[in-house]
Amino acid sequence: MPEGNEMKRVRPLYGTYDKPHDVQTCRTRISRRVFLQGAAGGAAALAWPRWASAEARDLEVVRAQIEKRHDEAVQRLQEWVRQPSIAAENKGVTEGCDLTMRLLRDAGFGEVTKVPTDGQPGIFATLDAGAARTVGLYFMYDVKQVDPAEWSSPPWAAALVDKPGLGKVLVGRGAVNQKGPQAAFLAALHAIRGAGQNVPLNLALVAEGEEEIGSPHFPQVVRKPEVQAALGRCSGIFMPSAAQGLDGQVTITLGAKGVVELELVASGERWGRGPRQDIHSSNKARVDSPAWHLVQALATLISPDGNEPAIEGFADKARPLSAAEKAMIAEGARRLDEGLAKKQLGVQRWVRDVSWPEALELLVSRPTVNIEGLVGGYTGPGGKTILPHKAVAKLDLRLVPDMTAAGALAALKAHLAKRGFGDIEVRKSGGYDPTSTSADSALIRAEAAVYRRTGINPILWPRGAGSWPGYVFTDEPLHLPAGHFGLGHGSGAHAPDEYYVVESKNPKVQGMDGAVRSFVEYLYELAVTS
Amino acid sequence: MPEGNEMKRVRPLYGTYDKPHDVQTCRTRISRRVFLQGAAGGAAALAWPRWASAEARDLEVVRAQIEKRHDEAVQRLQEWVRQPSIAAENKGVTEGCDLTMRLLRDAGFGEVTKVPTDGQPGIFATLDAGAARTVGLYFMYDVKQVDPAEWSSPPWAAALVDKPGLGKVLVGRGAVNQKGPQAAFLAALHAIRGAGQNVPLNLALVAEGEEEIGSPHFPQVVRKPEVQAALGRCSGIFMPSAAQGLDGQVTITLGAKGVVELELVASGERWGRGPRQDIHSSNKARVDSPAWHLVQALATLISPDGNEPAIEGFADKARPLSAAEKAMIAEGARRLDEGLAKKQLGVQRWVRDVSWPEALELLVSRPTVNIEGLVGGYTGPGGKTILPHKAVAKLDLRLVPDMTAAGALAALKAHLAKRGFGDIEVRKSGGYDPTSTSADSALIRAEAAVYRRTGINPILWPRGAGSWPGYVFTDEPLHLPAGHFGLGHGSGAHAPDEYYVVESKNPKVQGMDGAVRSFVEYLYELAVTS
Repeated sequence: MPEGNEMKRVRPLYGTYDKPHDVQTCRTRISRRVFLQGAAGGAAALAWPRWASAEARDLEVVRAQIEKRHDEAVQRLQEWVRQPSIAAENKGVTEGCDLTMRLLRDAGFGEVTKVPTDGQPGIFATLDAGAARTVGLYFMYDVKQVDPAEWSSPPWAAALVDKPGLGKVLVGRGAVNQKGPQAAFLAALHAIRGAGQNVPLNLALVAEGEEEIGSPHFPQVVRKPEVQAALGRCSGIFMPSAAQGLDGQVTITLGAKGVVELELVASGERWGRGPRQDIHSSNKARVDSPAWHLVQALATLISPDGNEPAIEGFADKARPLSAAEKAMIAEGARRLDEGLAKKQLGVQRWVRDVSWPEALELLVSRPTVNIEGLVGGYTGPGGKTILPHKAVAKLDLRLVPDMTAAGALAALKAHLAKRGFGDIEVRKSGGYDPTSTSADSALIRAEAAVYRRTGINPILWPRGAGSWPGYVFTDEPLHLPAGHFGLGHGSGAHAPDEYYVVESKNPKVQGMDGAVRSFVEYLYELAVTS
Repeated sequence: MPEGNEMKRVRPLYGTYDKPHDVQTCRTRISRRVFLQGAAGGAAALAWPRWASAEARDLEVVRAQIEKRHDEAVQRLQEWVRQPSIAAENKGVTEGCDLTMRLLRDAGFGEVTKVPTDGQPGIFATLDAGAARTVGLYFMYDVKQVDPAEWSSPPWAAALVDKPGLGKVLVGRGAVNQKGPQAAFLAALHAIRGAGQNVPLNLALVAEGEEEIGSPHFPQVVRKPEVQAALGRCSGIFMPSAAQGLDGQVTITLGAKGVVELELVASGERWGRGPRQDIHSSNKARVDSPAWHLVQALATLISPDGNEPAIEGFADKARPLSAAEKAMIAEGARRLDEGLAKKQLGVQRWVRDVSWPEALELLVSRPTVNIEGLVGGYTGPGGKTILPHKAVAKLDLRLVPDMTAAGALAALKAHLAKRGFGDIEVRKSGGYDPTSTSADSALIRAEAAVYRRTGINPILWPRGAGSWPGYVFTDEPLHLPAGHFGLGHGSGAHAPDEYYVVESKNPKVQGMDGAVRSFVEYLYELAVTS
């Protein structure tokens, strides 16, 4: 996962292994609208929806429960953060899984089952509210690694810290990625029950403990027959999120590109040419070079300017942008700040000096072939006169519908073989198919409705350029809408001093109680949206 | 410097920064000739030359002195090895320089001067024997770094160890590269003086303390007016060597390719395209990639098979092999073992599946562009979804006469600029021009004569494919023949357990006394060769 400087400045949208940056990096212009226009409650309260007028008294009771249970909700989040659960280090995973299962039971899930996989176990949980409708939830219980020396407050202390301009925040690994938003969602269930109400929908929840290492075994969880059956009854599935930027703005992203991560390994041993170990570089005059072989292979994968994928057949199935998607991007281009995006990325110009709207269209629609890393031979300071026996390029390929990870990999292998590079090993290390959800789905319309009532005009975005494993929900056989929802704010996923706002002093941003209210409202909205 | 497995098996020829491997790696077939055919002395003694018959009694006296002073010579070498002098770590360099100067004075050099440079100092020393002729000597007083944990005998202990099949060897850093052969040469001077004789030639010696880091300031030593004047009186210059392989065989190499070591650095900052720091790889869709830019630039430097340099103008001045050089290679191809060379290099076939004689012609005559290393972006295990802001290729270029390091570098820069890669930084880290010495020079004819009298039929080789800074002697304005001479054997330059044979039990290989005798004889031979 990226850990560059840029990473440390952006908030997570997916809280994921391969967090997309497109939208976060392109911060929106700060809205001058009054955030809580027409709010029924205090300055930091959410407006209750018009449809809820008949239930206003009930909802006021839930609101009171949220405020009453604030400390309890914060303590629950602190307990969760204090339990490290790092799949990459196999640290605290069992304890983290068991704690998550208990928190789900406490919040009212009736059936909570550990789902073994070939890796870390998943969780499958259901809450039967006797409602007509069911919605799905996607949780993760693992977190990213930490270097405690880099933290101003210890990563497992879950301390409450005053952050200038923001208010009281909880600092700790997993605070925003993903325990804070998930704890806010669970607090919503506690508040509804505390108010003597029924949850307005049935819930079917899947969780994994390997999100931060690329969800290698998550399909094994989702594809269990009983999980498929439960998800098959859902109208859609969402992951709790802290979706607000510092300006309060929210983007609703209707899917994500797919990705394949892989290594290309050229070696004398596999090639049958060149040396089997590093030899003195003077031998280049008579011995083939696996490093040059790799360079020549790489050069065929991309256009001379390094921008257009040139892998034969790679993007044959890429679906062009629809008129509706183009319209979303055009609207986004008007609302997003090009100068700020360039500044935050540290770039002076886009590929081919395209305009801002074109750059955003490329970001959404172009399949890519990227070099993540090059490593071969001598990599230390200065030089060393060797002819290396091996060289490696680390690539990621980004895919748009209707491309697939398997199809991209097959195209790459066939391309290399056809051009005399069939000896170069293609080692796939991870990958997802693209994922898409319709803006017309109830899941998304309900999101937009809740956001709009708070005075937020969400940016609708056709597709994130990063990747998350939503395809396990949106593709065959489930075809579920899948998304992310939640007010609130946090930052520092994968970075030191990760935080989640507990009590906001920024009028544009919700604290934890506001996040909890947004989940209550979203559940009620989903219950009546069809 | 190469440290691969191959490196650890070969003996140094130059004892240098960029030790060539061509000939060592292509071991000769073991000669079945009697090694000391016609030897006047014992089984391990050298035959005295015919020309020396008039002086036979004097030479017998010198021989007796060598034997008498054996322990003293070994102790001198031990003292030298026990003084670390590592330019790369600036460790013990002053002490190493001062000790070397004392050893030179002790051996009879009358004027011994430290020559300051912009780096570590050199040494200039003369021995005026009142002779008609003067010969030059090239010494080094620095050694390669060590990792003591890898040594079976501590690198600064200079212990005498029994090595099965070889006899008693001195183990220590610098044992063969270059203190052993140099100590044997100094022992020759002590023996001549001990026998009451005059050294048969005047000597002019230059030494440097930065050989292992590429001799960056050695030209400053050689180009001092008084050094130029002294070298200008020389008939040639040689470096003491332990030139015998385990089979006793010796190769006389008539020069070396030149080399340029450099880094090509592609960065967003210099390019003005792409990012200034690593960013999330999803941005590849809209942001240029310095890593792809580097790959595309690299691909233009070489033919599609990775073998023929394609840098415009790079090899325009490359001089084709002469008929005499081709004849030497043809003879060498008959005497050198192709199968053994392939085995030692770990290669199955040569470039374009050429024959053994063609492979040797390429080794001698082809300019090369080699990738020593590739390093960019994420280089750790697995992947990391970044678009790197920078990527680096480490190259070495090998040059043949009449190419020059400066010319090669200029051609590379012009080539890149012409093809739209002018932003890629070319960072030269070191380099030498090619160097050539005529087989007809007195220096080389005297070498061959001494070797032949010992029963060794030396392989004459037009040019080493590795590089050493002989150009400072062979080029303008000195035009001196330059070479390496000395019987004896050692191995492990730049590797653990470096050794030099002190008492040989291998009848094909001389021990230290034999090496000392070879230097005595070489001096006498040079005194009468014109």
